Amino acid sequence: MQASQEELKIGIFLFPDIETLDFCGPLEVFTAANIATGENHFDVYTFAESTAPVKTINGLSVNPDFDMESVPNPDILVLPGGDGTKAVIANPGLLQKLNALQEQTRHTFSVCSGARIPAVLGLLDGKKFTTHHSVFEDILKLAPKARVRPNNRYTDNGKILTSAGVAAGIDLSFYLLEKLKGKEVMDITARYMEYPVKL
Amino acid sequence: MQASQEELKIGIFLFPDIETLDFCGPLEVFTAANIATGENHFDVYTFAESTAPVKTINGLSVNPDFDMESVPNPDILVLPGGDGTKAVIANPGLLQKLNALQEQTRHTFSVCSGARIPAVLGLLDGKKFTTHHSVFEDILKLAPKARVRPNNRYTDNGKILTSAGVAAGIDLSFYLLEKLKGKEVMDITARYMEYPVKL
Repeated sequence: MQASQEELKIGIFLFPDIETLDFCGPLEVFTAANIATGENHFDVYTFAESTAPVKTINGLSVNPDFDMESVPNPDILVLPGGDGTKAVIANPGLLQKLNALQEQTRHTFSVCSGARIPAVLGLLDGKKFTTHHSVFEDILKLAPKARVRPNNRYTDNGKILTSAGVAAGIDLSFYLLEKLKGKEVMDITARYMEYPVKL
Repeated sequence: MQASQEELKIGIFLFPDIETLDFCGPLEVFTAANIATGENHFDVYTFAESTAPVKTINGLSVNPDFDMESVPNPDILVLPGGDGTKAVIANPGLLQKLNALQEQTRHTFSVCSGARIPAVLGLLDGKKFTTHHSVFEDILKLAPKARVRPNNRYTDNGKILTSAGVAAGIDLSFYLLEKLKGKEVMDITARYMEYPVKL
């Protein structure tokens, strides 16, 4: 794939009891790509069911940039994990809106137990997935046709990608960064973040 | 050092143009230690000059738990980095309050260019430090008596610790977690976060 020069929109979904590093990892990688290169590779924003503050499972209070009505259609949709994903998949109205966004993306990726969301939307059927080691069985119950890859740090099915738990979202972000923008941008970003990338 | 059973207070300092992963990494590690073990090892909170939302250099909006007047004295003070550290060290009133907190801690640690803060407070004089690779010279100008360790992922001077850039704050947090709470708690936390710790 040729490295793209265009600015891609990255929408990061937030919800109560989200795991902090699940979303801060990808947010850091894609914004650091801009900072480290001085180029506008990505327009990164957060969104949630409403713009009210969201409390993470780690106690951090975050203000989403957009709600479900105002969020611009992202080219890349990031679905982080955390215990709060159980409430997300029990909310049909919210799922319907996430699915409408997902239909328009170039890539949709889950981190950790964020895999619950593509699982209930049927997006993992026949696809390879990984997730947090504690929820492989949960995901297979939600998506019996999905093919679990417990030893992979992440999986790439083309449009749908998934990562293992928490910190693995950083690794998947670097993988996708290289795929979208090339090795040089990825290397510059990894050096800025002082992150030992092993793809 | 014996693993401590007591709940330790960890105060994480926030400021405009902070680097997101610099503070979210340590916040994730110390709160994950509680979640993963089901025990109250740490009381982790954020604070800033005021409780108004803080915008990180990566565009994330965060609500600090406390301001400088209301923040409880932490046992461990975390000083993250980011371009905004330049404004912090140009603010004598704020520095004075940070120093008053620092005097009461058991450990104070900087991440990345957060080393500017202990540097101007004289805390690195005669001490080993590391920081983001782009600001070694800056820190040495602020603290000519400090001893730079450019190849270290982190340094431990007893009370004062420092880490290299951005992601290295996670490594220093795991190092301190093991020192404070023992290898078993550290291992359980690393497994929960699916982070490949190499101490």
